[in-house]
Amino acid sequence: MNNFDFVCPTKIIFGRGTENRVGEETKKYSKKVLFVYGSGSIKKTGLYDKVVKSLKGNGVDYIELSGVKPNPRLSLVYEGIKICKENGIDFILAVGGGSAIDTAKAIAVGALYDGDVWDFFVGKAEIERALPVGVILTLAATGSEASDSAVITNEDGWYKKGIHSDLIRPQFAIMNPELLFTLPQYQTAAGAADIMAHIMERYFTNVRSVDLTDRLCEATLKTMINNVPRLIENPEDYDVRAEVMWAGTIAHNGLLDTGRIGDWASHRIEHELSAIYDIAHGAGLAVIFPAWMKYVYKHDLDRFVQFAVKVWDVDLTFTDREAIALEGIKRLEDFFRNIGLPVTLREANIPYDRFEEMADKCTSNGTATVGQFVKLTKEDIINIYNLAK
Amino acid sequence: MNNFDFVCPTKIIFGRGTENRVGEETKKYSKKVLFVYGSGSIKKTGLYDKVVKSLKGNGVDYIELSGVKPNPRLSLVYEGIKICKENGIDFILAVGGGSAIDTAKAIAVGALYDGDVWDFFVGKAEIERALPVGVILTLAATGSEASDSAVITNEDGWYKKGIHSDLIRPQFAIMNPELLFTLPQYQTAAGAADIMAHIMERYFTNVRSVDLTDRLCEATLKTMINNVPRLIENPEDYDVRAEVMWAGTIAHNGLLDTGRIGDWASHRIEHELSAIYDIAHGAGLAVIFPAWMKYVYKHDLDRFVQFAVKVWDVDLTFTDREAIALEGIKRLEDFFRNIGLPVTLREANIPYDRFEEMADKCTSNGTATVGQFVKLTKEDIINIYNLAK
Repeated sequence: MNNFDFVCPTKIIFGRGTENRVGEETKKYSKKVLFVYGSGSIKKTGLYDKVVKSLKGNGVDYIELSGVKPNPRLSLVYEGIKICKENGIDFILAVGGGSAIDTAKAIAVGALYDGDVWDFFVGKAEIERALPVGVILTLAATGSEASDSAVITNEDGWYKKGIHSDLIRPQFAIMNPELLFTLPQYQTAAGAADIMAHIMERYFTNVRSVDLTDRLCEATLKTMINNVPRLIENPEDYDVRAEVMWAGTIAHNGLLDTGRIGDWASHRIEHELSAIYDIAHGAGLAVIFPAWMKYVYKHDLDRFVQFAVKVWDVDLTFTDREAIALEGIKRLEDFFRNIGLPVTLREANIPYDRFEEMADKCTSNGTATVGQFVKLTKEDIINIYNLAK
Repeated sequence: MNNFDFVCPTKIIFGRGTENRVGEETKKYSKKVLFVYGSGSIKKTGLYDKVVKSLKGNGVDYIELSGVKPNPRLSLVYEGIKICKENGIDFILAVGGGSAIDTAKAIAVGALYDGDVWDFFVGKAEIERALPVGVILTLAATGSEASDSAVITNEDGWYKKGIHSDLIRPQFAIMNPELLFTLPQYQTAAGAADIMAHIMERYFTNVRSVDLTDRLCEATLKTMINNVPRLIENPEDYDVRAEVMWAGTIAHNGLLDTGRIGDWASHRIEHELSAIYDIAHGAGLAVIFPAWMKYVYKHDLDRFVQFAVKVWDVDLTFTDREAIALEGIKRLEDFFRNIGLPVTLREANIPYDRFEEMADKCTSNGTATVGQFVKLTKEDIINIYNLAK
């Protein structure tokens, strides 16, 4: 086990009716906030009215910033930073999924910085300060509600990049599974794939003696495997929705990779897809992760056997270890397909003509490798895109 | 799943050499601290010198309060409070196991209170403020390094009582498994039983639809089952020590009972034992928990079957469910005995003549029940002591 520092101070406020506590929680930090959300869907569901009522009822003033899109854009982040600076705003409230939260986190960093916030995404500046952020979560997927990361897409070149810092972990995350009842089935499924990918990125490690976190990863994956298909059938089953929602936070708050080093190649390879094609990130992961597995499993067959046996209940009486490992990967693919996700580029309607361009971007024009479990070159990444056809 | 609030902001600093960071972490809070520890063992191992060097090197002044005993005493808490008040101390550093940490937490609460700190333990006052506490952990057992609780024994009547508040979670917990290499085998084993008891107290719940936390509890218990026997054999195996140490924190930081209500009767019943007989708390739990299980398993046979199958790998082809449940309890007993712990009062050299007195204390003279999974009366508790003979 490696040495590690771990801190996740986000206060989780989980359950029915908790969205009504947003004003009470927010006013602990500020009475003048930026209220970030996406499209009109929170108006249709009535969530917008509840938030406004709770903020006003607690004397919290707000300026709205709406229009957050999936794969959230840098231009809106700039807009939010400008509003904060011009109005002396010192708290950002995000209501939505990962896109709204990541937008809020990027604004929180940029509002206290004199230069271009994109500097933090390309390694030109380090995060030393950030405004506090609060969250009402409406989609279980990115884990951004308690994570130390945010991913933003720069429309100028369609670069999708991330930042990491404990300073951007939200102060609170309000999570009511009922708010997710009206999600389209495809979004629920793509979110589930994202959650499972967060666990699997951590699971495939070269660090030895990581029993506890292995077991916790397997426990969280099993919870997903048991509950997601039930959720696809019964989107308004509160308890099943709650399991998946809470698993989404645990998957990505950092607990599951204490003492180990995750891989993250699949995320990077997928980011190039969703930056160009605007496919849901989780759906892209359902395509890329199995292809990545098929490409790298021989690097540590034992770990893939463990994955097959402990996560997918593959019977150890199979005659050879490679067959066990491959059966585990197949069950993952079957699982994704059964919940309605694409598992090939063809199924995702993505053409095959820009592999080189994407692999170039992913590896800084072939000068860098991607991933920790196996360090992938530009050629490797092209091979993985080909395996995903 | 129940609604819940969960926050655990303790910064975990885990691994080799981390004790040397204590000064650097402490000075973020204060330059004048109370340094609480137990006997001379930290002087023998050299830890004391390292702490002093790191504090001094970072310009942190300290007053020492040593002499913390197992089942820590209220009198020492009073002494610490007096020192803090007289010297304007605003940070408590505990170096040791749960006893030192709980002493520090109680001092942290009492130092900001004008009345008797025992008021908080008997429900006469509510915790509204506490000084910040930091920890260097030298025993994996109580989970106090990141928990919201502290247990203190009042020598006046030998009452052992606890307090709970997010305000007493430590600011940081420094955890170097190497610091535990010199522990006597019995203390390692008793600590392991305490850790497992923390998980089992949470596992036995009447709340339905708690899949994720069930799986996480099972994962943490399995990690203990796989690693503790190896640790008893090889006390200086760093990786095995690390697994058990980190499991001890996860077991009791509150994550494992998000959305559910734990039982806690066994802890209460055991506290009466260790208050009177000064047996190690974990050893007392190894005696009481199996007896409690035998007494209550019929209340929810399904849950005990799940415990037997998922935690102890009892084969479901046993002919009846009751036999499966009982086999799970037997394997727990065998496990405790195999790591050198008593599993009966006889084995713990505890006489049978004060059951009524202990059951009286535990139930406020028969006026209250104990436990949430099954609400136990004074008579029930006497029965459980008898089952533990």
